[in-house]
Amino acid sequence: MSPEVNVGRQMRYGYRRSVDAPLGAVVERVRAALQREGFGVLFEIDLKAKLREKLGVEFRNYLILGACDPATAHQALQQEIDLGLLLPCNVALYEEDDGRITVGAVDAARLLEITGNTALAESAASVNQRLHRAVDQF
Amino acid sequence: MSPEVNVGRQMRYGYRRSVDAPLGAVVERVRAALQREGFGVLFEIDLKAKLREKLGVEFRNYLILGACDPATAHQALQQEIDLGLLLPCNVALYEEDDGRITVGAVDAARLLEITGNTALAESAASVNQRLHRAVDQF
Repeated sequence: MSPEVNVGRQMRYGYRRSVDAPLGAVVERVRAALQREGFGVLFEIDLKAKLREKLGVEFRNYLILGACDPATAHQALQQEIDLGLLLPCNVALYEEDDGRITVGAVDAARLLEITGNTALAESAASVNQRLHRAVDQF
Repeated sequence: MSPEVNVGRQMRYGYRRSVDAPLGAVVERVRAALQREGFGVLFEIDLKAKLREKLGVEFRNYLILGACDPATAHQALQQEIDLGLLLPCNVALYEEDDGRITVGAVDAARLLEITGNTALAESAASVNQRLHRAVDQF
């Protein structure tokens, strides 16, 4: 038997893979993987609950985690004081129509490119490398 | 006497202005202005406190608010399921070296452009118009 290969794929502004497991279990594994890679989670937004509360509509299960590596953020903020407009790096978890859970991390390089500050490229590359590992190995 | 004119200015990836007032008062005014424009605040990150806690370093006063108009977010998510990687729209407040507080809102159009999904342009324009009013009129 060959082992199951399930690693993330690059999309236009993120990196994602999907797994066949309950959302509650997945989010715990993703949080642990982010922690192993040096990221704290600054917020967790339950979009489904928020949309129900504010609009009374039903939406798929959808969580957004705000992942931040404090040391990298501190360095990058000193290079770009307005960077708070783009922090932290989002990790989104949502339920597909077939019940699988897709976990995606924003592409930090693509995101920080819009600042036009090339000094941020090194931080963005380091963040992406670790976000990709977290998505591949949760 | 001519009245003081203090409106925001467009920067590369946001819109901002600065005011001479204490941060605590400014954040309350900004929250009220966002609410008037239809935005809820999904998170408030105190970067100074977070950097002190995690790294033991001193940083300037710096808050990040996550602003979200639920109806626009709901519509945009149906056009772009991975949009959670870029939500909500950040509003950053930080203390300048001279003590003034700069308040900036991310440029939603510039941010959503990275999705490559042109269907989002209308939502982004509506969000920007209201974020600019909030920055100008808090």
